[in-house]
Amino acid sequence: MADPSTCPPLTPSSIRGAYTKIQPHIHKTPLVTSRSLNAIASSRDPSAFLSDNPPPFGSAESDVNDNVDAGQSSDAPPRFRLYFKCENLQKIGAFKARGAFHAVTRLIEELGIDEVRRRGVVTHSSGNHAQALALAASTFAIPAYIVMPSISTTSKIAGTRLYTPNVIFSGSTSDEREAVVADVVKEKGAILVPPYDHPDIILGQGTVGLEMEEQLRELTGTGEQSTEGDKARFDAVITPIGGGGLLGGTATFFSSQPDTLVFGAEPSFQGADDGRRGLLQNKRIEHVKSLTIADGLRTPVGVLNWTIVADKSQVEGLYAVSEEEIKMTMRLVFERLKLVVEPSGCVPLAVVLFNTEFRHMVAERQRLSRENHGGTNKAYWDVGVVLSGGNTTMKAIATLYGEEKGAKAEREAGKINLDGTKKVEDVTG
Amino acid sequence: MADPSTCPPLTPSSIRGAYTKIQPHIHKTPLVTSRSLNAIASSRDPSAFLSDNPPPFGSAESDVNDNVDAGQSSDAPPRFRLYFKCENLQKIGAFKARGAFHAVTRLIEELGIDEVRRRGVVTHSSGNHAQALALAASTFAIPAYIVMPSISTTSKIAGTRLYTPNVIFSGSTSDEREAVVADVVKEKGAILVPPYDHPDIILGQGTVGLEMEEQLRELTGTGEQSTEGDKARFDAVITPIGGGGLLGGTATFFSSQPDTLVFGAEPSFQGADDGRRGLLQNKRIEHVKSLTIADGLRTPVGVLNWTIVADKSQVEGLYAVSEEEIKMTMRLVFERLKLVVEPSGCVPLAVVLFNTEFRHMVAERQRLSRENHGGTNKAYWDVGVVLSGGNTTMKAIATLYGEEKGAKAEREAGKINLDGTKKVEDVTG
Repeated sequence: MADPSTCPPLTPSSIRGAYTKIQPHIHKTPLVTSRSLNAIASSRDPSAFLSDNPPPFGSAESDVNDNVDAGQSSDAPPRFRLYFKCENLQKIGAFKARGAFHAVTRLIEELGIDEVRRRGVVTHSSGNHAQALALAASTFAIPAYIVMPSISTTSKIAGTRLYTPNVIFSGSTSDEREAVVADVVKEKGAILVPPYDHPDIILGQGTVGLEMEEQLRELTGTGEQSTEGDKARFDAVITPIGGGGLLGGTATFFSSQPDTLVFGAEPSFQGADDGRRGLLQNKRIEHVKSLTIADGLRTPVGVLNWTIVADKSQVEGLYAVSEEEIKMTMRLVFERLKLVVEPSGCVPLAVVLFNTEFRHMVAERQRLSRENHGGTNKAYWDVGVVLSGGNTTMKAIATLYGEEKGAKAEREAGKINLDGTKKVEDVTG
Repeated sequence: MADPSTCPPLTPSSIRGAYTKIQPHIHKTPLVTSRSLNAIASSRDPSAFLSDNPPPFGSAESDVNDNVDAGQSSDAPPRFRLYFKCENLQKIGAFKARGAFHAVTRLIEELGIDEVRRRGVVTHSSGNHAQALALAASTFAIPAYIVMPSISTTSKIAGTRLYTPNVIFSGSTSDEREAVVADVVKEKGAILVPPYDHPDIILGQGTVGLEMEEQLRELTGTGEQSTEGDKARFDAVITPIGGGGLLGGTATFFSSQPDTLVFGAEPSFQGADDGRRGLLQNKRIEHVKSLTIADGLRTPVGVLNWTIVADKSQVEGLYAVSEEEIKMTMRLVFERLKLVVEPSGCVPLAVVLFNTEFRHMVAERQRLSRENHGGTNKAYWDVGVVLSGGNTTMKAIATLYGEEKGAKAEREAGKINLDGTKKVEDVTG
């Protein structure tokens, strides 16, 4: 990987520089809106829309206005206009293509294409970063060595082999994987490209924020959703946080715009909310062992990434959601937006819809803003929501949402939850 | 419904007129491309890409060129560049919004808004047309009465109630439904808006073709997929055919462009291929009783629609696919395009991928064209594929793709993975 000391600083203008480099190689993914999701998010109880008998939206053409409490009251629900950034439609099906292309083009600049081709690049991953690096490397005819645990599912192995012939297997512990990577580095001279903990990766992922902002202006410029006189800007942007590359990059991009708050979203299952817990104890958490369905977010926050995430002037806060909330959100994304988004990619919208702490915070800020402006301020938060990836399978969906005999009976008897887990009565957030 | 004798003629220019009327009310849905689906469609055996161990694409950045037989041979596979029209992202999740808005705006022109508001509109349907009509009517504050069989699933009833409070139940035979419609017409003076068998509906649906053509020019103009010197045009467009509104409208739009062939696609299960069978016996088939998973295509072709479909100068041919082929296609659309498309909407791509008669026909035309042009003609067919709608549910998907008994036991015993693939212990790179 490019020596961090030679990397551009973590600033919005470095992200503009990264964008120039990667733009020819990535998709400008759409930024989409949905009246029905606006109405659901701005209702008092979004989960009601997942019942067999959802409440009507009123006239579907009417503004979200008509569907929520007119609300000067102190317990009015928060109000949102949501803008979904479809990185599930990105190359290899996830935002990771951005960081990988940036890392590879930076390596070529620094070492020259001949040296990079001779040595190749290496990473250990079975996820989206592996495919992204293999794609970016193959674009420049650079060998990519991907180290994967041999117990990986055949579909993940096959998925990675679509992009590179050089899949190398290791044991499943991190020591075993790193030993195999060390071998590849030693034997081939291959250059390690880490998945998130590096400035070039962070700057590459930050181009998501840059594109979103451009697209918001295009959208509002054409009058699709007017911003009531304001210059178009997001009140908030929310991304998933696993290792912190995407959140760190996005926060970096908006760091010079204090009116746009940046939030991170993570799963709470089995301690995968290491970011949030780390903030509470003012210390990066180094180890996470969670099998959350949001499998892209099982990793602890990286060292460099943590310096951004823990900086309140850059990241306003982190919020966590349950497995069931992620599943409900994935169903809404699927059924309302007609988009396939993997569980990790649904976590930010899950926070908007179901995290009561987040929703109260937004409602309270909106109430204060109304009081300060005598009701002349804008009525909604314009929130950018990053749908970070779409790499899931029909089989995984069928397993997640199918119910077996017996389970249905138990669920109907109220003993277990929709996802088959036993009902827990006392869980504290 | 507007008196057919007062309707504009079925011509491309009438479709341009319809577009002007409905454009403010509908989405211009995206036209998307996919290198991986191009490669799959242009391979000898597309089903191989659905196995647990799919063949590699070669370099994912390389042209589809590299991935298929270089092929001057007589049994070379057909070659496609596909353009997917995403009507699953249309309002109410299907192209039906186009015809419904056109029908309603035409009624208003003809009778005046006051009379239409006083009388209201009525239809019998539990599908996408019901929601489309309810949405279009509500946009102009016109009452919409939707007659549905009382045995409809709660989700369909709830879906329709999202857009109109006036859901009226009937028995499930067509006589019973029509009797209830007749009552509503008599009692309220409501105006019947049929789902497909009317010029205004056909012209409205034809705007899909108009938009696709515009978008192809935009895409190729920006160099995304060059057309090798030709003016950008589709070699073929393929849409589903149920009642024939979408196919009839699309064929009407391209009727003055003999170089663009228009095809229809239907399911073969339990005789739902009534269009194809009707052509063989030179007579419209009036009754269909099929429970194909492509539930939007269970209906016989309409009377007016048949006059277009049976005209070889307008519709080049109809092809049918099996339930399993539809399911395989839906999985590819989901996993590769990351789009949720209902089974009916997957039928045209299923023909492109799996109908051997269609594929041989294309390959043969391409072989002849090569011979006639000494190899200087373009190597691919540019094919527009209409993804007509996306109204399905997670539950339906889980049922369609859920694991069989036994599979779960194996998974729990640790023998197979979450995605149903067998665990692999010894995989060598």
